[in-house]
Formats: sequence, C-alpha cells, structure tokens
Amino acid sequence: MRKTVIGVMGPGEKATEGDLQNAYELGQFIAQQGWILLTGGRNVGVMDAASKGAKSDNGLTIGILPNSDQHGISEAVDIAIFTDMGNARNNINVLSSDVVIACGIGAGTASEIALALKAKKQVILLTDDVESKSFFQSLSPENVYIVESVVDAIAIVKAILRSKSL
Amino acid sequence: MRKTVIGVMGPGEKATEGDLQNAYELGQFIAQQGWILLTGGRNVGVMDAASKGAKSDNGLTIGILPNSDQHGISEAVDIAIFTDMGNARNNINVLSSDVVIACGIGAGTASEIALALKAKKQVILLTDDVESKSFFQSLSPENVYIVESVVDAIAIVKAILRSKSL
Amino acid sequence: MRKTVIGVMGPGEKATEGDLQNAYELGQFIAQQGWILLTGGRNVGVMDAASKGAKSDNGLTIGILPNSDQHGISEAVDIAIFTDMGNARNNINVLSSDVVIACGIGAGTASEIALALKAKKQVILLTDDVESKSFFQSLSPENVYIVESVVDAIAIVKAILRSKSL
Amino acid sequence: MRKTVIGVMGPGEKATEGDLQNAYELGQFIAQQGWILLTGGRNVGVMDAASKGAKSDNGLTIGILPNSDQHGISEAVDIAIFTDMGNARNNINVLSSDVVIACGIGAGTASEIALALKAKKQVILLTDDVESKSFFQSLSPENVYIVESVVDAIAIVKAILRSKSL
Repeated sequence: MRKTVIGVMGPGEKATEGDLQNAYELGQFIAQQGWILLTGGRNVGVMDAASKGAKSDNGLTIGILPNSDQHGISEAVDIAIFTDMGNARNNINVLSSDVVIACGIGAGTASEIALALKAKKQVILLTDDVESKSFFQSLSPENVYIVESVVDAIAIVKAILRSKSL
Repeated sequence: MRKTVIGVMGPGEKATEGDLQNAYELGQFIAQQGWILLTGGRNVGVMDAASKGAKSDNGLTIGILPNSDQHGISEAVDIAIFTDMGNARNNINVLSSDVVIACGIGAGTASEIALALKAKKQVILLTDDVESKSFFQSLSPENVYIVESVVDAIAIVKAILRSKSL
Repeated sequence: MRKTVIGVMGPGEKATEGDLQNAYELGQFIAQQGWILLTGGRNVGVMDAASKGAKSDNGLTIGILPNSDQHGISEAVDIAIFTDMGNARNNINVLSSDVVIACGIGAGTASEIALALKAKKQVILLTDDVESKSFFQSLSPENVYIVESVVDAIAIVKAILRSKSL
Repeated sequence: MRKTVIGVMGPGEKATEGDLQNAYELGQFIAQQGWILLTGGRNVGVMDAASKGAKSDNGLTIGILPNSDQHGISEAVDIAIFTDMGNARNNINVLSSDVVIACGIGAGTASEIALALKAKKQVILLTDDVESKSFFQSLSPENVYIVESVVDAIAIVKAILRSKSL
C-alpha cells in the first residue's frame, strides 16, 4: 500500500537554467510513473520547478518545509510538512525518499547528498559541476550514480526500485 | 491547490478500546471529507486505527515516523515521512496539521497538545480523562475544544476550517 | 567525568513573579551543588532568571536555543547550543537533563514535562497551578514529584541523583 | 560572558591514524586557549580523540549526541547533549560552533561542512583528501580554509575570532 517517494533536491535561489529545466522534467517523469515527488517545498529553484513539473502531469507533491509559516511555499506543493527545523530538515528529505536525485549543486544540496550517503541511501547526481561529481563518487562509489540526462536518471531510479523489490 | 491536513494524535500501546473506536471513525470521517489524515504513523494505537479508518474510505494517509527504518509502520500509511528524531517529531505532527484532534491521552499526546497550543494551533480533545480536559482548557481556553463524540469533533473541524478560509 | 546537568524549565514571557523568584533561587542552589544548569536559553522568564541565579554563585550555564542567531539569548548563558528547531528543541532540553524541574507552567513548559515523562524522566513540579499538578500527577504518578518550595525541589533532586548512582 | 566554542568534526569509525593524531592535538590546542571543544560526542574516531586531547589539557568538552541513551559516549565528554535526532544533529553541531574544523572526511563530516557553509559559517579543512578540498573550496571559496597542519588550523581560528570581535 505504501507509495513510492522520489526526492528531488537541488539549489533554491542559485539554481541554473539547466537545473530548472531538468527539475521540471524530473517532476513530469516522476508523476508519469505514479511516484510521489518529495522536495524541500519552497517556491524557488529546483524544489519549485520539480513540483510544477509533477503537477503538470497530475502528480502528487510533498514539500518538507524548513519553517512553520505559510510564506514561501511552492504553489505546486499539495501536502506541506512544516518542520520548523531549518536545514536539519534536509535529513528528513533524504530519509523519506526511496531514491534521492540531486539536480544541480549548492551547499544545501551537498548536505542532502552527504546525509543520504551517511544513511546508505542511493543518490543520483545530475549536474555539470565537475568537482561535486568527483567528490561524491570518491566518497561513496557504491551509492552514487552520475548521470547526464533526466532520462538516464529515471532509468536508474527504476533499476534501483526493481532491485529493492526483489 | 494545497490539501487540507487533519492530524489525529493519541496513545500508542496504551490506547483504550474507546480511543481506538473513536480513532477509526475519525479516520473514516476525515477521508469522507476529502481531507488528508496525518498521524504519528506507527502500527499501534490511535495512529494505526485512524489510518485504517481513513483507508476504509479510500482516504490518503501520512505517517510522520519517529525512526528511520521500515519496522513498526502502520500498514495503512500511504506516505511515510521518516524523521529519525524520536518524540521531537511530535512538533512536526502538529505544525503540519490544519487542525489537531487529540483522541485519548498519554504523555506523547499531551506533548502534542501542548506543542500545538504553543504554536497557537486549535486542538480538539476527545477523551474521558477528566484531568486532561481540565488542564488543557485552563492552559488555553481560546484554542482548546472539548468534545464528547466523533461527530462533534468533525463539526468543530469544519467550523475551524470555515473560519480560516474567510 | 561526566557532569551532572539539571534542567530548569518554565514560562518565558508569562512567568509570574513567584516563578522568577523560584527560578533564581533554583539556579543558585544548582550552582552551589556544582551541578550544571540547563535551560531554554532565552533572555526572558524562568530561563533567564535561573541562569542569572546560577551565575550569581559562579555556576556554569547552558542554553539550548530555539533559533540560530545571536538575538534573544540570556546574558547569563555561558554556552549556547543553537538548535534552529523551534519548540522541538524542548525534547533536547529534557533528554539532556539528569533531572527536570518545571518552575511554573505554560504551553511550552507543559510540552517539556510531557516529553520528559514520555522519555521516563523524573520531573519535579514547582507551581501554584492546581490543574497542572493534578494532570501530570495523574499522567505519571511514579515520575512526577509535586513540591512546594525550592528547598524541597533540591532535596528531591539529590534523592533522585543518589538513587541513580546506586 | 559567553564562551567561545570550537567545533571539531570528523569521521567516526573510518578516521585514519593521521586524523586521530590531528584531532587529539586540536583538542589540546583548543583547551590551551581556554575555548570549549564541541564534538559529536561518540566514543570513536575524531570526536573521541579531540575530546581526549582537550581533557589532557583540562579543557571543557561538549558532545552533541545523535541518540538519547548512555551508550557509546566518549568518556572524555564533560557535558552530553542528547538530541535523539540522528544525523540531523549535525546541523546543531555547526550552528553551535563559532568556528568549525573538519579533521578528515567522510559522509557525516561532509554533511557538517555543507551545513556549516549553508549557514555562512567559516570552515577549516584539515585532510589529505584531494577531492574534498577541491569540492568544498569550489562550493564556497570565501568561507573554506584549507590547512596543512594543526598549527595552521589554530592560527586561522584565531584570525577568524579576531575578525568577529572587531
């Protein structure tokens, strides 16, 4: 009965155009598969773009918010979880995702990748940033997947879910 | 677009038969209204009964879990949010609920009522326990609603939601 | 080598004159015993008064703060722990205290007492509030101690610490 | 009156001999300056070595623990703060440190560096790991200091503290 939850993490204010485009498409693919999209819930950057993409395909979207008020929430978030615990909520984001996709990089996203790896979660990294790819692959070769496209990211998600259900 | 989330809190292992019956019916009513049910997500007591009630009417159920593993989760939880923060997750439970219904009493539930009142949330209290009714009403007369039945609880939820949307 | 930590919890803005006087004296007695005082760390109410009392007797004071900035901290806090998790930090307050003393009552303090009892901690309650005494004693008769004075509170702390060290 | 708190973060079970030696010396230097040492508090790796170093010079040590029980705590921790929030406590570690020193690298430490940078904290990185140095310096050139020795790390801490007090 439990639904599959895919987390899409990425920069807020500092997302690139490419990150936003990827995030929107990730949201669409996730919705098309019937998976639930989980993001950090704010109305900026990758969180917002992924949620909008998912809603464009009638997906269900969850936002794990850092604060406790009604401001700054993506309008494409269906269910808002208010943590009021700032960036410590990043740990909840990754623990609650069956697979974590990092779309772009920044300090917050780096913390989410690291917390996911600490919890032995599998992380798919979609970014042009060379240093982050090199670092996270060296940190956890067995749990980090570097991909070059949204389509590849979704293919890896499917493979991971299949291996979990065996 | 944001969905209405109603939190049902109550004892786990120490729930009474009356609490469990009330929780199941609360879950049913909440699902019938199209609201989302939020609980503490464990497979015991009020959390479990309310979630099962909601699923019996095709509702959507969210469980905010205290741990991070796959054990002890109510099978009637659709979406599991893993906090790994023990009882500190009680604050997330109440912050994420548009209205909080306390169904029965215990130390964990008392903490949720108190945290809800601290956050100026409205709390509906459905219990036979005399001391808890007396205490919480004295603590916050304006935000605590004492009810005698599930039907009354749902009527108060509707009134609160209506007043918020004005 | 580990030091004994005594938590003093109580209202912030809504503390009564009696609460503040009791808190100050509790801080003094705690410092005199060589125990460390732990509070919620803000510059108001019981937190502030207890910390000032402890410093007046050269005690060491820890404040577990709800936010992450330098504003609103009691000037009598030696060591500030910044949680940035709002009232969820109340759980850390009680888990980190060998014994919890509630000095006065309010919604935040009630959450701390309840979270302490949930964690099987012993709680000493010093207040004129009749309903809170009645409620918490009914909630956990074995772990709640009702006292009428600061001197009695300290005597109970000593007895609890002695029984733990056996 | 507030005391200066220096956080030393680093791997637990996977710390190298070099990390442990550096951590011990960092603890000694920190104690000699009269600063308080803050670590993750467990009885392994960099946390344990730094705490032991600080105690060897009569420093005061704080451990911010991921759990809530008495097991696995470094015996060199004077004051234990029990968070019961797993790796989300990493955010508290960095928010509560005036300066963060990362001694060695691993997934948990990487999350702490990233959370520190997200909070605009200054981070000193002491490690042989090439990828982490390259990544974190590219992530936040203005707030990451790469050092080659314990002595250099302490010199940077002093410079940062001096600039803050101006």
